[in-house]
Amino acid sequence: MSLEAAVHAQAIELIRITMDMCAAAGSGHPTTSMSVSHLTTVLMFHTMRWSPDYPNYPTSDRLVLSEGHAVPIVYSAAAKLGVQIGKDTGKRRRLTIEDLKRFRDIGSELEGHPNPVEGFAFFDAATGSLGQGLSVAAGLAEAARLDGLDRRIYCIIGDGESREGQITEALDFIVDRRLKNVLPIFNCNEYGQADRVSAQQSPERIAARLEALGFDVRSIDGHHPGQIIAAFEAFANTTKVQGGKPMAVVARTVKGWGAPSLQGNGWHGKPPTGDALKRAFTELDERRVELTSALASSDAFTIQPPPEMPTRERSEGDVPPLGDTMRAMDMESVLHAGRLATRRAYGIALRALGHANPDVVVLDADVSNSTFADIFKKDPALADRFVECKIAEQNMFSAAAGMGLAGKIPFVSTFAKFVSRGYDQIEMAIYSGANLKIVGSHAGVTLAADGPSQMGLQDVAFFRAFTRVKDHRGNPLCYVLQPADAYAAYALAGVMAEYEGTCYMRTLRNDTEFIYSDKQVFNLGGFEVLSKGRDVVLCAAGYMVHEANTALELLDKAGVSATLVDLYSLPFDTDKLLDLINENEGNVVTIEDNFGGGIGSAVAEALAESGDPFKLRQLNVARMPKSGRTPEDVLAYLGLTANDVVKATMQHLGV
Amino acid sequence: MSLEAAVHAQAIELIRITMDMCAAAGSGHPTTSMSVSHLTTVLMFHTMRWSPDYPNYPTSDRLVLSEGHAVPIVYSAAAKLGVQIGKDTGKRRRLTIEDLKRFRDIGSELEGHPNPVEGFAFFDAATGSLGQGLSVAAGLAEAARLDGLDRRIYCIIGDGESREGQITEALDFIVDRRLKNVLPIFNCNEYGQADRVSAQQSPERIAARLEALGFDVRSIDGHHPGQIIAAFEAFANTTKVQGGKPMAVVARTVKGWGAPSLQGNGWHGKPPTGDALKRAFTELDERRVELTSALASSDAFTIQPPPEMPTRERSEGDVPPLGDTMRAMDMESVLHAGRLATRRAYGIALRALGHANPDVVVLDADVSNSTFADIFKKDPALADRFVECKIAEQNMFSAAAGMGLAGKIPFVSTFAKFVSRGYDQIEMAIYSGANLKIVGSHAGVTLAADGPSQMGLQDVAFFRAFTRVKDHRGNPLCYVLQPADAYAAYALAGVMAEYEGTCYMRTLRNDTEFIYSDKQVFNLGGFEVLSKGRDVVLCAAGYMVHEANTALELLDKAGVSATLVDLYSLPFDTDKLLDLINENEGNVVTIEDNFGGGIGSAVAEALAESGDPFKLRQLNVARMPKSGRTPEDVLAYLGLTANDVVKATMQHLGV
Repeated sequence: MSLEAAVHAQAIELIRITMDMCAAAGSGHPTTSMSVSHLTTVLMFHTMRWSPDYPNYPTSDRLVLSEGHAVPIVYSAAAKLGVQIGKDTGKRRRLTIEDLKRFRDIGSELEGHPNPVEGFAFFDAATGSLGQGLSVAAGLAEAARLDGLDRRIYCIIGDGESREGQITEALDFIVDRRLKNVLPIFNCNEYGQADRVSAQQSPERIAARLEALGFDVRSIDGHHPGQIIAAFEAFANTTKVQGGKPMAVVARTVKGWGAPSLQGNGWHGKPPTGDALKRAFTELDERRVELTSALASSDAFTIQPPPEMPTRERSEGDVPPLGDTMRAMDMESVLHAGRLATRRAYGIALRALGHANPDVVVLDADVSNSTFADIFKKDPALADRFVECKIAEQNMFSAAAGMGLAGKIPFVSTFAKFVSRGYDQIEMAIYSGANLKIVGSHAGVTLAADGPSQMGLQDVAFFRAFTRVKDHRGNPLCYVLQPADAYAAYALAGVMAEYEGTCYMRTLRNDTEFIYSDKQVFNLGGFEVLSKGRDVVLCAAGYMVHEANTALELLDKAGVSATLVDLYSLPFDTDKLLDLINENEGNVVTIEDNFGGGIGSAVAEALAESGDPFKLRQLNVARMPKSGRTPEDVLAYLGLTANDVVKATMQHLGV
Repeated sequence: MSLEAAVHAQAIELIRITMDMCAAAGSGHPTTSMSVSHLTTVLMFHTMRWSPDYPNYPTSDRLVLSEGHAVPIVYSAAAKLGVQIGKDTGKRRRLTIEDLKRFRDIGSELEGHPNPVEGFAFFDAATGSLGQGLSVAAGLAEAARLDGLDRRIYCIIGDGESREGQITEALDFIVDRRLKNVLPIFNCNEYGQADRVSAQQSPERIAARLEALGFDVRSIDGHHPGQIIAAFEAFANTTKVQGGKPMAVVARTVKGWGAPSLQGNGWHGKPPTGDALKRAFTELDERRVELTSALASSDAFTIQPPPEMPTRERSEGDVPPLGDTMRAMDMESVLHAGRLATRRAYGIALRALGHANPDVVVLDADVSNSTFADIFKKDPALADRFVECKIAEQNMFSAAAGMGLAGKIPFVSTFAKFVSRGYDQIEMAIYSGANLKIVGSHAGVTLAADGPSQMGLQDVAFFRAFTRVKDHRGNPLCYVLQPADAYAAYALAGVMAEYEGTCYMRTLRNDTEFIYSDKQVFNLGGFEVLSKGRDVVLCAAGYMVHEANTALELLDKAGVSATLVDLYSLPFDTDKLLDLINENEGNVVTIEDNFGGGIGSAVAEALAESGDPFKLRQLNVARMPKSGRTPEDVLAYLGLTANDVVKATMQHLGV
């Protein structure tokens, strides 16, 4: 049997399996799967250099299924190939056709959309929120480039999905970074969910866009095995030569290919059952007779295994303390001045971490001179590991996720406000088990002059939602870190690098006074008691620790003995904090430079769950902030200065 | 003096004023302002049909400054023209040059980035988080089209900013919707913040992209008055003819135009002072001598006023109750079945609201058959007010904001998970005082089979952060609404339409049983006591009201008398809830289908702030959910079934 006929036969078999699988589940997207049946067959049975026995082997070629709802066809192929599955890597087993009957079942590894953490390690990242896959693929490609691995990354993107702006961001990124080892494959099946795709996403228009962006475009019939194979061979060839344009494939396909009764509108996310299924099977049989001359067999295919992983000489060094690092950077005078912005300490930490650990990479979005990530960028020994993403945060976060999933430790920084541009992407990265170190600078209202469009105000509430959810390793889905001084920022950057999982750190625009020293130890889940009193606990983080500290002194003069807690981590040790509040008559005041839902809520939850008669007063941003020339102006406008803290505390205590 | 010389003279004067303004503030972005000095001069002094006396007159042409940091040049022009400013519309006054000295001051209307709610009504929307302006402009254009107004919308976009994928989404939207009354103007000054812009955002590449997307592109010298005026005239002409392509302008400009000493890298967000300022002034004087033949005067310009606002015949009808609407839609049998998905009730409500109020418009992102927004779309009398945005949520939310700011009542729906793609945009819309009615469908874990990539899990935490912040009218920045049945969803959609401000409503994929009837009244800030007991209050919302209700019956059998509260609104009447908890021995259990940070946190805050010995137990999604075939499977996996509620409640009460 010719390779072409074998591809047809295999594709048709995968479709049959897929239709059974979706019918059993009572949901799923068989018609989208059918549109990528030939592309998937050629990739998984022929083109990709990988091993079903080690589906996430580090040198393997990878498939990122950006249009995640097409996943059943990949499961079908994986079952045919006996791909290893299992949440516990020590107890993996071969996927069988029988397993497919449990697609989307609560006990199954086969999730409704790609989700590696549930045990299907063929995929690196969770997809399904559309438009993100190409960025993840680009991140995998960037990591392979840094590691000198000849890995090819294939990414299937839906035509409707390509309307997501992030796809264009990823394409720009691929051209900018000259990533010729990633292949965007546009699956143009002409139908979205509710209706046909727009003419703006026609294969012709997509090809024209790609050309305008600087791609070498190959338009093919996505159900023609010969054309698919030739396109993938052309791609392989381009990866072997230096220079030239990156390549992209525009594949015309048919949604519901092989079964005309399922084509057109109305069969998205709706598996045929009963007579409709029978009819589709009959139609598929006709296609098989027409397109293949003999019974199909996957024996016709040879999958080339990935190369052995090269042994890497890894020398992880120690990270020197901040004082030493700054002295080595001729910053002795700043050290003596006793004030430094946490954002700058972050930049200094990046440099130290970069030298200590070759896996540390840094991504930034045209604000590295503000976040101080440029300290890393400007170091010639590290510059190759600095990835400038330009003003396209969505792509940056997904690409960072890809780099993290390929073994890098990606620090990703921009203004805290602009981190919110990538919340969907960050969430998907967290679900993928990615190892993101997100740093939002200019956090909170003390940014002042630029106004609310540049302030991170809801960021603590957003990320806190993830802190009380356990991931597949039993850790919080995310830690939120708010350093109050340069020592804390420097140390916490190091803690983030050590930890495998996602963290979000807020840094500040303005200089803050040193509170700590290099001797101080910071832990995920920890907090620090800066001053111990008897009457009330003041809980603050970041900039507000300094306001609270001033308030503490004023309270002392007024005869109130306050305890000051730097609540630099969410989550934190609740019992320990409750004990402290107990020792302070049950009184607590929380002080934040952001909207509610942050540390005030976290403390409130701890108190309310304890059932003890504690009393909380929350101070946070309770009206819209505006521009002001100084942090103090804005804090005064919002009732958040040290004097306001004093007033609120006295009132709270009834004195 | 020729018009060209007058433009040069005026532009140079605006630059001088801008540099003084930024020097006084000690911050701001003069060099970006200088790059758009001629474009702004031509628009505000010559091309736009508007009135400085009524800067937000509803028929005026509009300028959306997507690269918001260029705002000083607009303030300079506004001061020269004596534009009316003031937060209180009844007490507006003319902006003066003197006022500019307070730029970015806490007491000033002149924010660091455009922000209409602080009193500068020349702008419709807050900008400054980049890449959003063109979508807002498209929304304004779409509203003008619907209202039959000959309004032209100009949008200035930075070249670096155009990397944001949302810009491409907006361009696709403009072509799809044939919006020829909006003009994207790309300001190609070649410099971003940290570095030069990528070659991907060169003027040639931007022009090539625009052509590939279907635009008629005019590339000009952005400091050549004649070319600018001719381009805007060409645009005006295209708006007068039917058909043809939409137009875009690519303007080559110089960052720091007029003062070579401020050009190149290093002067972004950094106003010159002292000698640097003097030198720049000298350089500007040389340009003036070179380019103008006489002293400048704005007398050379005539601003054409906007046409009188046509009197609109508005007939707002009543919204019939759900029962009547469903009977009119031949849905009597569904009504009798006693179960209906809240998402479908939302769709039914849209139709009723659309008929009752001509300002109601609906936007959706290719999921209208899932959100049931297609009930509105399919009604021939309403179809013109349905705006299909395709799979591009960021553009959808910003365009909806634009429509809302132009007087429409935009309902915007997609999956709750995909709403998160637009969180940054939604936040900016909220800051703009926009009137968004956001509906996230398939919310929470009971979506089940599709898995976590399609579930809204952190949405309540995110939106709750806005519920405790007051807007410029003294209202919460947002209400979060969680209807538990079809009657609630239908009624709350009506409440949202009535209210001027942003709301977020969560709807459910699965049918839920009727709890209410058409007699029930729902209020923003309200909650409903469904059953009154003595021992413990169960607080739930949405789907979980039904689990809680089952738990209530089981608890009753076990001798526990529980009170059931449908906490359908955030914020809610805290005192009333505390009274109820007081009547129930201080015991409360909250039950949610999302991550923490939602109603559990809201209740915790109320309890902890009261200082009474209340005791809370929170049940929410505390581990990563996965696919399951039924809602019950997933709830059981997460410990959130009625039985789990019973168990937790008994434990909580120590029985």
